[in-house]
Amino acid sequence: MPRPTPHVPPLASLVPTGESFSRWPVAILGATGAVGQTFARLLADHPWFEVVELAASERSAGKRYAEVTRWIEGVMPDALRDREVLPCDPSAVRSTIVFSALDSSAAGTIEPAFAAAGKLVFSNAKNFRMAPDVPLVVPEINGDHLAIVEAQRRARGWDGAIVTNANCSVTVASLPLAPLHEAFGLSKAFLATMQAVSGAGYPGVPSLDILGNVIPYIADEEPKVETELQKILGRVDGERIAHAPFVVTAHTNRVPVEHGHTVCMSLGFERRPSVDEVLEVLREWRGSELTRDMPSAPERPIVVSDAPDRPQPRRDVMAGDGMSVTVGRVRADHLLDIRLVASGHNTIRGAAGGSILNAEIALGAPSRAHGAVAAAALAG
Amino acid sequence: MPRPTPHVPPLASLVPTGESFSRWPVAILGATGAVGQTFARLLADHPWFEVVELAASERSAGKRYAEVTRWIEGVMPDALRDREVLPCDPSAVRSTIVFSALDSSAAGTIEPAFAAAGKLVFSNAKNFRMAPDVPLVVPEINGDHLAIVEAQRRARGWDGAIVTNANCSVTVASLPLAPLHEAFGLSKAFLATMQAVSGAGYPGVPSLDILGNVIPYIADEEPKVETELQKILGRVDGERIAHAPFVVTAHTNRVPVEHGHTVCMSLGFERRPSVDEVLEVLREWRGSELTRDMPSAPERPIVVSDAPDRPQPRRDVMAGDGMSVTVGRVRADHLLDIRLVASGHNTIRGAAGGSILNAEIALGAPSRAHGAVAAAALAG
Amino acid sequence: MPRPTPHVPPLASLVPTGESFSRWPVAILGATGAVGQTFARLLADHPWFEVVELAASERSAGKRYAEVTRWIEGVMPDALRDREVLPCDPSAVRSTIVFSALDSSAAGTIEPAFAAAGKLVFSNAKNFRMAPDVPLVVPEINGDHLAIVEAQRRARGWDGAIVTNANCSVTVASLPLAPLHEAFGLSKAFLATMQAVSGAGYPGVPSLDILGNVIPYIADEEPKVETELQKILGRVDGERIAHAPFVVTAHTNRVPVEHGHTVCMSLGFERRPSVDEVLEVLREWRGSELTRDMPSAPERPIVVSDAPDRPQPRRDVMAGDGMSVTVGRVRADHLLDIRLVASGHNTIRGAAGGSILNAEIALGAPSRAHGAVAAAALAG
Amino acid sequence: MPRPTPHVPPLASLVPTGESFSRWPVAILGATGAVGQTFARLLADHPWFEVVELAASERSAGKRYAEVTRWIEGVMPDALRDREVLPCDPSAVRSTIVFSALDSSAAGTIEPAFAAAGKLVFSNAKNFRMAPDVPLVVPEINGDHLAIVEAQRRARGWDGAIVTNANCSVTVASLPLAPLHEAFGLSKAFLATMQAVSGAGYPGVPSLDILGNVIPYIADEEPKVETELQKILGRVDGERIAHAPFVVTAHTNRVPVEHGHTVCMSLGFERRPSVDEVLEVLREWRGSELTRDMPSAPERPIVVSDAPDRPQPRRDVMAGDGMSVTVGRVRADHLLDIRLVASGHNTIRGAAGGSILNAEIALGAPSRAHGAVAAAALAG
Repeated sequence: MPRPTPHVPPLASLVPTGESFSRWPVAILGATGAVGQTFARLLADHPWFEVVELAASERSAGKRYAEVTRWIEGVMPDALRDREVLPCDPSAVRSTIVFSALDSSAAGTIEPAFAAAGKLVFSNAKNFRMAPDVPLVVPEINGDHLAIVEAQRRARGWDGAIVTNANCSVTVASLPLAPLHEAFGLSKAFLATMQAVSGAGYPGVPSLDILGNVIPYIADEEPKVETELQKILGRVDGERIAHAPFVVTAHTNRVPVEHGHTVCMSLGFERRPSVDEVLEVLREWRGSELTRDMPSAPERPIVVSDAPDRPQPRRDVMAGDGMSVTVGRVRADHLLDIRLVASGHNTIRGAAGGSILNAEIALGAPSRAHGAVAAAALAG
Repeated sequence: MPRPTPHVPPLASLVPTGESFSRWPVAILGATGAVGQTFARLLADHPWFEVVELAASERSAGKRYAEVTRWIEGVMPDALRDREVLPCDPSAVRSTIVFSALDSSAAGTIEPAFAAAGKLVFSNAKNFRMAPDVPLVVPEINGDHLAIVEAQRRARGWDGAIVTNANCSVTVASLPLAPLHEAFGLSKAFLATMQAVSGAGYPGVPSLDILGNVIPYIADEEPKVETELQKILGRVDGERIAHAPFVVTAHTNRVPVEHGHTVCMSLGFERRPSVDEVLEVLREWRGSELTRDMPSAPERPIVVSDAPDRPQPRRDVMAGDGMSVTVGRVRADHLLDIRLVASGHNTIRGAAGGSILNAEIALGAPSRAHGAVAAAALAG
Repeated sequence: MPRPTPHVPPLASLVPTGESFSRWPVAILGATGAVGQTFARLLADHPWFEVVELAASERSAGKRYAEVTRWIEGVMPDALRDREVLPCDPSAVRSTIVFSALDSSAAGTIEPAFAAAGKLVFSNAKNFRMAPDVPLVVPEINGDHLAIVEAQRRARGWDGAIVTNANCSVTVASLPLAPLHEAFGLSKAFLATMQAVSGAGYPGVPSLDILGNVIPYIADEEPKVETELQKILGRVDGERIAHAPFVVTAHTNRVPVEHGHTVCMSLGFERRPSVDEVLEVLREWRGSELTRDMPSAPERPIVVSDAPDRPQPRRDVMAGDGMSVTVGRVRADHLLDIRLVASGHNTIRGAAGGSILNAEIALGAPSRAHGAVAAAALAG
Repeated sequence: MPRPTPHVPPLASLVPTGESFSRWPVAILGATGAVGQTFARLLADHPWFEVVELAASERSAGKRYAEVTRWIEGVMPDALRDREVLPCDPSAVRSTIVFSALDSSAAGTIEPAFAAAGKLVFSNAKNFRMAPDVPLVVPEINGDHLAIVEAQRRARGWDGAIVTNANCSVTVASLPLAPLHEAFGLSKAFLATMQAVSGAGYPGVPSLDILGNVIPYIADEEPKVETELQKILGRVDGERIAHAPFVVTAHTNRVPVEHGHTVCMSLGFERRPSVDEVLEVLREWRGSELTRDMPSAPERPIVVSDAPDRPQPRRDVMAGDGMSVTVGRVRADHLLDIRLVASGHNTIRGAAGGSILNAEIALGAPSRAHGAVAAAALAG
């Protein structure tokens, strides 16, 4: 099932032309929270994007970013400390390109308002992930789903658009599943996750709940795992995404790990592969052509480990600068065909980093892209 | 499939009569290690057993117990501190009843030597668990398997016998599976474990391997889970145990938890039960009659939790003084029938405590039992 | 400096007589929080006190206790699950004896209201600890400070009274300091604490802040350590407590430990003791006569460990059912005289358990005490 | 007390000339252990040094590095996987420059053998740190101590030399103490450490000892802290190092942190500085000129944090790529003058990274240095 490779990034034409710039100016919505901080951190030295606006709740608006933000990882970039926080209001935010780290309680109204106002919203929120006309994109897998943005804009009458990335544990699971599904036809999947506390944001999981403990429950997580995977591995069918027809059953658990979600999988396929065939497919896969040379794309979306006891979140979480998923323990299954373990960074690959890579494949480099846009506009 | 309830503890008659005593005198083999210490701790105030001998490797023999033992949990019982450690040699150990906490590297030769010398060995080692003539007992489930001890003694020409308890994660899984298998006929089980570090003994797992980490591999653990369950839920068939015919596929993981193994299960049954039927069976089950009034038997072998996020190892590990398994999150499965989570104490229920309960049902209280033994001996 | 031993519990006479009862009826204020739960847990089987009322914020009032309480440790006592939560209003609470687990934001107004209304408030809040007419009691040390309750009642015109227990890390530090101060005259103390997360309540410390981390700061903690110790080791001087004149400098740290505060101390004394003299004093001390035979008093308030690497919070936290402080590593200091380490349970000894023991010495057993009270009332 | 700045790296002349090379060839002794691995990791892309030889115990010698090494952090560099491990024998190792990560049990005989054979041994072992003719170097502080290498070589008749770096917690403490000592004259220091498990090597601390726990004892650590600091802050006095005369009292603790030692300090000075004066000195200090432009020297050896709750090991450990020590909470002390907290990376700054920076200042860049050596040799 070869995927079409668009030669022109699909969304760049939506960014208005005007003054030239070397980097796309972007805003972060929900910039003070855990995911917002990860956007800020990953975009601090980004070659294509420059964070020029930070927006958050009314409570924080008008204050300095450093004043209202309890920085979680390392040290806040100096360039952002004194930036005034804007309200999450499309009239207050000038950037056309917007990364949304909003809570789902806020995203449901704010993101459509931004999209209606012509903004391109690359969202980490769950609210629109499962809407049939909203692309749910893991770039190496289904970047071509971006094509339904046109249908989305027509149907909703938006000048802009919403593009979503997947839930963090879904993202980690999806990367090894994609090439295996393509090669062998996934039919059944048991997934048991062991998820890091950073997946719950900040303050998130109280330490009294998780020190020396496991919590075998994450609210609303299992349904997400079971349905988002079907959409990501589905295909564009006219104006909507048709889900892939496999069945997933999930057990989601919280463990005392800072970063890195780990997923144990038992998998059944239509064409029952051997362990060696699975390893070969995983080792050779490089993901969609769309991600070639993208700044945030790892050299390999999947790293296969030979060690008997890997992947491990603490040791493998930074593979590919946090954008690769490490896969190991590929072995036969007694009930289905194959067992394996995957682990990846939940706040980089599974959240902000994935969303940034979505924007990269959708927009292209600012010089080329915007030049093309400008040229086209002039020609028009 | 009702199990026969023997009215006479099967092994008491093997303890030689002689002087009267109020508690059975017992020895612990491998007394300096983690499991040996748990035996010592749990037996410190036992109403039926009195630890009179502590045996360990040649390196420790002849020295004070406190001198050669790095005590792991709380504080060493004062009564044991100055006890001289004996070698693991049947001629040096006078007790007929012996609890073995030996490493598998030593148990393979030492336990048979003790059994040959007339000792009743209640073993936590893996070496003889899968031998067809050695009972692998979780008392509430298959105490009746003790009956094959006779065949074992005949076949091996032993004056004594070996009785084993199951692997720690198997024990935790087996307790909810037993009544469900009996009620609905288990056919398929997908198990994903999250196991505490104390399951690896001491020094066991290095802290650099597990702090903030998950290790998705425990050497030799998955085959144990897959086969021991079949034996425990099997039945006595002449001179051997016939395995139950269901299929198990396991993923075993180490997590940064001190005590308490947690198991996520997806289960398929011949008679597909509803969630409510499963809950009813779990709530009503009290386990084999053999365990009634036994000192180490918990009031309920299974505690069912209604909370959406339980069981949790740190909070539920001491249910029933560490002898109950807590079960929760019973819900439907998309591929099989039922999903649930079980958690229990790996070094109490899953090791020393289970072995002590095995001895209790095999021997009975010393007054009754030994009186009967003495009387029978005199009559003979 | 011998302390006077009152022969009559000082506060029992304030409990109104009337119907006879076998246990004092008591209320818990702030019953839904972490400390409130610990009160509920420790009082569940108390021989002298019976929890008959649970009070909390308006938000919880009128609802079932189980409905509004996220239980943190083990399983909520069945007897409390369906109890209706009352508002923290003296007119809604009938019990005269009240344990306060209120937040400091609420305690400042609610506790005086209860005291004015004739209630005896045994408080864990910090608000009144340093008031000169409020006793700050660690029972084995300064139970005689209860005598200033009379001055408090007169000065404030209260029918009831407030008795406070100390900050959790102060309590742990105070127990070894008390006999050493009495024997050798403490002049200088450096304290560096490593405090458990349960000291911050629930939800308290976010897991992202403390997993694999140390936070070298606890808001307002160092001043508490530096001043509360001086008051506890001070003496009744007319209508106020005169502080002991030693100087304390404290470093307080949060560490990823569930329960148990550990304190490293370097100590200077007027009469410079040797290590052996210090050990002898610590080993022999039993604390004030007032605590003899009290239900919550541990056999030994201080347990001295010989092991080179003890005390350790996880292993020693339950010494004396959580009411003993374990002391070890007594050795010479290069700048002052003596170094040592103390560790104790912060939510039992350092909070709810300490407050309950305060009530025990203040009230005595209900039969005796109340009998005496009734007799005195009749005589009057 | 201005330190002399040598214009010529002192030890480069000891490296024999010959073929030209762009990077100094180096060997790692004890390459399979935790510190050895850190050397290998930090040297993987070093501009001046190239790891050409890996040596370890006889047990590993002759085997592939990947075969005998359980890699602890991330993934082993590919270039080293198939390297044959050499014995720790000077005749088997051709490199003149040698980094020693040997255990103290081996370093005592192996390091002198290498030094006698003309090797320059940059050692992380404790064995020779306190020898009066062996430099104990924290480069930003006392790089000039390298001058006593001449005395060492003469006295011991060695063709090579030994240069040591300090104990990990000493290194972290020394960096803020050095400029404060220079500015105000340190007289007294009370130090309480909270040390990461990686400081104990691998397998090191068993997880059962440290999960949810604190161990208030590290074997032999307190005397090291108390004496090494005096030597590092001392000065060259003829053929030996004269210690600085301040007094240190230390409490050393192990905490469940992966990397990063944190030290709470109370400090007394001859010229009693204010908090502001201390902050100014710490903020302005750049360390010895010797470290300017060295590849492993951080931009700032000390990073001062304004946040009330920093430094924290997990968040600050990688400051300056693990080579900066973060200092915070500078405040007045009640007994001495100043309290503060320092935190730094124990295996980078406190072990392998510090040793590599020692080699950099001792040898200089290979082109310059070796050119000069060669020129000098030709001129000679």
